[in-house]
Amino acid sequence: MSGERLIYLPLGGAGEIGMNCYVYGWGRPGEERLIVVDLGVTFPDMDGSPGVDLIFADIAWLEERRDRIEGIFITHAHEDHVGAVGHLWSRLRAPVFARTFTAYHAHRKMEEQGQDPNNVKIVGAWPETVTAGPFKVGFVPISHSIPESAGLVIDTPDGRLVHTGDFKLDATPLVGEPFDPVLWGSIGASGVKALICDSTNVFSPHPGRSEASLGPAITKLVREAEGMFVATTFASNVARVKTLAEAGRDAGRSVCLLGRAMRRMIEAAVETGVLTDFPTTVAPEDAADIPRGNLMLIVTGSQGERRAASAALSRGKYLGLTLAEGDTFLFSSKTIPGNERGVLRVVNALSEIGVDVVDDNSSDYHVSGHANRPDLEEMHRLVNPDVVIPMHGEHRHLREHAQLAESLGRKGVLAPNGAMVDLTGDRAAVTEYVETGRTYLDGTVQIGALDGVVRDRIRMALNGHAVVSLILEDDEPVGDPWVDVMGLPETGVSRAPLVEVMEEDLSQFIGRAGRRTLADDDDLEKELKRIVRQTAESEIGKKPEVTVVISRLS
Amino acid sequence: MSGERLIYLPLGGAGEIGMNCYVYGWGRPGEERLIVVDLGVTFPDMDGSPGVDLIFADIAWLEERRDRIEGIFITHAHEDHVGAVGHLWSRLRAPVFARTFTAYHAHRKMEEQGQDPNNVKIVGAWPETVTAGPFKVGFVPISHSIPESAGLVIDTPDGRLVHTGDFKLDATPLVGEPFDPVLWGSIGASGVKALICDSTNVFSPHPGRSEASLGPAITKLVREAEGMFVATTFASNVARVKTLAEAGRDAGRSVCLLGRAMRRMIEAAVETGVLTDFPTTVAPEDAADIPRGNLMLIVTGSQGERRAASAALSRGKYLGLTLAEGDTFLFSSKTIPGNERGVLRVVNALSEIGVDVVDDNSSDYHVSGHANRPDLEEMHRLVNPDVVIPMHGEHRHLREHAQLAESLGRKGVLAPNGAMVDLTGDRAAVTEYVETGRTYLDGTVQIGALDGVVRDRIRMALNGHAVVSLILEDDEPVGDPWVDVMGLPETGVSRAPLVEVMEEDLSQFIGRAGRRTLADDDDLEKELKRIVRQTAESEIGKKPEVTVVISRLS
Repeated sequence: MSGERLIYLPLGGAGEIGMNCYVYGWGRPGEERLIVVDLGVTFPDMDGSPGVDLIFADIAWLEERRDRIEGIFITHAHEDHVGAVGHLWSRLRAPVFARTFTAYHAHRKMEEQGQDPNNVKIVGAWPETVTAGPFKVGFVPISHSIPESAGLVIDTPDGRLVHTGDFKLDATPLVGEPFDPVLWGSIGASGVKALICDSTNVFSPHPGRSEASLGPAITKLVREAEGMFVATTFASNVARVKTLAEAGRDAGRSVCLLGRAMRRMIEAAVETGVLTDFPTTVAPEDAADIPRGNLMLIVTGSQGERRAASAALSRGKYLGLTLAEGDTFLFSSKTIPGNERGVLRVVNALSEIGVDVVDDNSSDYHVSGHANRPDLEEMHRLVNPDVVIPMHGEHRHLREHAQLAESLGRKGVLAPNGAMVDLTGDRAAVTEYVETGRTYLDGTVQIGALDGVVRDRIRMALNGHAVVSLILEDDEPVGDPWVDVMGLPETGVSRAPLVEVMEEDLSQFIGRAGRRTLADDDDLEKELKRIVRQTAESEIGKKPEVTVVISRLS
Repeated sequence: MSGERLIYLPLGGAGEIGMNCYVYGWGRPGEERLIVVDLGVTFPDMDGSPGVDLIFADIAWLEERRDRIEGIFITHAHEDHVGAVGHLWSRLRAPVFARTFTAYHAHRKMEEQGQDPNNVKIVGAWPETVTAGPFKVGFVPISHSIPESAGLVIDTPDGRLVHTGDFKLDATPLVGEPFDPVLWGSIGASGVKALICDSTNVFSPHPGRSEASLGPAITKLVREAEGMFVATTFASNVARVKTLAEAGRDAGRSVCLLGRAMRRMIEAAVETGVLTDFPTTVAPEDAADIPRGNLMLIVTGSQGERRAASAALSRGKYLGLTLAEGDTFLFSSKTIPGNERGVLRVVNALSEIGVDVVDDNSSDYHVSGHANRPDLEEMHRLVNPDVVIPMHGEHRHLREHAQLAESLGRKGVLAPNGAMVDLTGDRAAVTEYVETGRTYLDGTVQIGALDGVVRDRIRMALNGHAVVSLILEDDEPVGDPWVDVMGLPETGVSRAPLVEVMEEDLSQFIGRAGRRTLADDDDLEKELKRIVRQTAESEIGKKPEVTVVISRLS
């Protein structure tokens, strides 16, 4: 094996929660055969990525090596793990492997982006494995907040790696396989070189609770409610949706699923066989005729998304359904950091209608899908690796998790995005740094996060935009310069219209300008910009972005 | 008193946490003499108000009645209560009353905006009162997270009102007066018509803790730290800054205050006499020479503000000071909803440096400045009003607080911004609605939130901006139309430059266009916009904002 090496390289997901994309490689340096684990998205926000539709890890490094990629392995069907498959596949062109439920979603994502869905291959659970170049990869069932999640056993010529994917230790997950400590222990029995491990909840000190623990409290809440009962959760949390629906049924209510994602996810779970005996539901158009006290809605929008069912209901009507005083609205979910304002907007709008809101403050109605600190310790113990490499977390989570591993007597390697870890032999250290970043899906176009496009939009949002037009003929102005503004106040301190003050200042400059300036587009543009910004600064205390359009008649 | 009425009208702060502005009036309808309580700001965000500097309540209603305003009473010196005084005073021109420390800040805010600071009058604590038309107003000391907060006793011809301002029940606030239940009980003894009451923490079920409870834990933490110790909190929480500084001193560290707001607030507290025996501090330029283990920094930026000291330190250097592995950073503060991303950005940047971050998860290092639910109940009991009108809260807080009052046997009136409550005689009901809203300070200009200026900026941020220029002479095009874009990808599906594809489509249209279209600016503009948006949609999947500049040579 001399000269060959085993590498791990996170391109996304290690330094953030989202856009997971991890690479493993084996071979001579520069010739490693590669596998990719997960191709996920993260979501844009107005602060940093206004107008952007989705965010992917920058896969330029992988694309340059695409002839060496043996396969893309998807651990589970959450968007931050499978969401980019359709968008990025054509740049990688390797087979995609996943278990049935996950493959169902990957298949649809390929179709939606016009890719051949037959590139998605269904793999059975461990001990079945896929041979991918020098790797043998098995999907080991693991509990999480979506059906059929898998951790990966990656057997390499230099030993076994275990990549947990997202997980919790749940003996009674209601939908999907219970966590099986014997199975996971057996995987560690023959020695594991490194555990690449979910870090999301490393700061949560208490053992995680089971999905099954929620049923009684939710059922009691629904039973005691008098008006309409509405509950929201992540559509992909099929077990939770089932718990909610069963609570509705048991309280004698008709259950109606609202929101496209909600209906599609339940359909997918039924079609792939992971969900059985889901309570009968009624269509939204029939729900409106049911007395409110006999109706339960399960809706999308647990994060306050403006266009989801929950926000629509909070603003008024959705598919003919309206909320009223005395109704109850349950958030069976946690607010993801950054979404607080959107969620509170919905809560306050519900309050204005007179709807009683129940959130997760009490922890009675929501459990996390990720392993808490003691559960991580248990996982380390079961798999018993030499090295722990934390992933799926912000930097603070990775650092804390690496320290936790060290405190338990193992080597912890802190490897944020772009840090290549050499795992050959007894080594386990970051030896190279690869340039990483983000790719924006903007409308239908993929652009680099640093291309300047979004930066310009942010600048226009902060400063407004002024457009100066000037026509010249033989280096002489034809008429006066004029100005159009967008996103700027109409008048400033002088109380005259802002554009008129700007045009006056520009005209004075043009009147004084020498022929050399008027003949030079660059000079002229620079000067016109400067004047507009200076006038704006004194009139309105703000310097806008400026576009100068110089037209020369010939 | 026939024909006269007593009114309460919130213009800001009832339906949000921020921009407090409340009005009380007495007199014949339409002729009431008025007083204003608080003139605060709220802060903009990229989601809803990009580029805006500050947000005020819309005071158009008050401005129209400014000849009837007897005074402006400021309860305490937090920005959401005093921050708009300088900006809005010239529109109201009534005397401003406050206690010494608050008046110090109001004075400075008047000066900063070029207003005569002598309009700010210092008032002593209750039982001193100010006569303002039909009202007698007294400032009753109340504990909060800033020195010299006051609740207001407002005696009217129709009985006593009590306006709490922001408060907590703190017997040992360290700086400022302890909460005095006997004093507050005496205020209620002769009968109170209505308690207008802080609602911020109505959802917090346990009694609040005292500022004094933090000292031992903070001191222990600082003592045990090895590298540099940095702590951040709100600068205005003078008691907390003192606790932190004393912990530093007791651990043998030199204390250095970083950030303009931090130094100014401590200066103000010393100058006005509310703060005595604050530990000696060192200047930032001297701090760099002190061994890290002997240094404690107390810094601004507890909310992750990009330009504050904490964010600057997390990015590298601030005034010659740098953090290093093994240093400790304490957030002695709570993250305000909406600021999570900014705070986590700082935390993760600190993690990358290797700094150990201690946040408020444990509650050992921060207490709230607002009364929790049991404390609110205690306040109701002490003041013993007939009616409770919740204020200082989002809609959900007001509704919950009104329900709490009702559950305790009092009348609760839910009055969000714009709801005028008639308190005359035994009435206590919302009888009118006044139009309210927000005013943006944008640079140096005040604009209405609904003026469309900020809406245009948001649209440019989401969609980008295209500028189409076309020159015509005698209704014939001179040359081809051309396009400039800002915030749009350079190329779309056809792989040709986006502006060239747009220009081609525009030229084709112009070539086909009839003389009637070319002669009509409105028609032409509409068509050119439509084409650019349509081309963009097919090229990049996005419809930009479009400005059309048509120049007609004569």
